[in-house]
Amino acid sequence: MRTAVPLELAYRLLNHGPTTLISTAHGDRRNVMAAAWVMPLDFDPPKLAAVIAADTYTRELLSASGECVVMAPTSEQLELSYAVGSCCGREIDKFARYAIATEPASIVRAPLVRGCAAWLECRVLPEPALAERYDLFVLEVLAAFAEDRLWSGKEWRFEASGPRTIHHSKGGVFFATGERLAVPRS
Amino acid sequence: MRTAVPLELAYRLLNHGPTTLISTAHGDRRNVMAAAWVMPLDFDPPKLAAVIAADTYTRELLSASGECVVMAPTSEQLELSYAVGSCCGREIDKFARYAIATEPASIVRAPLVRGCAAWLECRVLPEPALAERYDLFVLEVLAAFAEDRLWSGKEWRFEASGPRTIHHSKGGVFFATGERLAVPRS
Repeated sequence: MRTAVPLELAYRLLNHGPTTLISTAHGDRRNVMAAAWVMPLDFDPPKLAAVIAADTYTRELLSASGECVVMAPTSEQLELSYAVGSCCGREIDKFARYAIATEPASIVRAPLVRGCAAWLECRVLPEPALAERYDLFVLEVLAAFAEDRLWSGKEWRFEASGPRTIHHSKGGVFFATGERLAVPRS
Repeated sequence: MRTAVPLELAYRLLNHGPTTLISTAHGDRRNVMAAAWVMPLDFDPPKLAAVIAADTYTRELLSASGECVVMAPTSEQLELSYAVGSCCGREIDKFARYAIATEPASIVRAPLVRGCAAWLECRVLPEPALAERYDLFVLEVLAAFAEDRLWSGKEWRFEASGPRTIHHSKGGVFFATGERLAVPRS
């Protein structure tokens, strides 16, 4: 089940640096891609920075619609995460090809991919020079959700043998998010 | 032992989203802070994007020197990583206070913190509007090194019970980089 995450805590969904999926939609076209270079940029209102290459279909739909959903996939979505990062949505419908189940988002038109750990509905804050020079986009988070089996209400809570967020190392190789390590309070 | 990482592979040191330490130096002043919002921005020449808040001593030294070292600390440096993110270098010498051992870098004046998994010597690419608006800095990686017990030559290679990179969740709480998960090649 998705649970709403207060906007002031939305940065914690991506603070640990997981890889992401980004969905976009414009008119009757939609797409989803993998993006490892995404990070929080501000707390409240929450913003993200995301690198989205110039030649991608996602970039085209993002620029046309001004919206997207940034998601943190889990270790159960490894093959999906790799597949949608390895082919182009201009040529195939990735949702059909990889049987990706979606649901409507609450604010934006881009879809939510089922089975993720986190979903952040975003709008693009126009920064044309940044996009041009670095393929970098600034996104404002409008709504945030977490899978409630994985979220304590304030932080990630992964069980030893259960699904976890993932971190992209190189083509097809990821790391699961590992053991929770807390500094003893002095 | 530190081993040099070819610049075209430097992005892989941070691709999985670990938290970082950033050291800076200018004249006889130096500092080190923790920064979770750091990510690769380009492959070759490698660039990073890093958020460094306006009121930090690191920002002052970074702006004055135009240089820094971005490092990935390990699970053996948890308390150090939290400590240097929780106090200000204007008030105390963090290196002395936390007994942080350093070595000279190869190109920049900012020091390397011993015991890290990765070290990326960087220069600031001036983007004053970005710094002003988002506290965001674009860094070009000039030299990169990895701890050779943790680096295969092409990717991270963490042993089951050994030190690993870490990912910041929230104040004082981190995740270790977990199990390596590879997509089967079809």
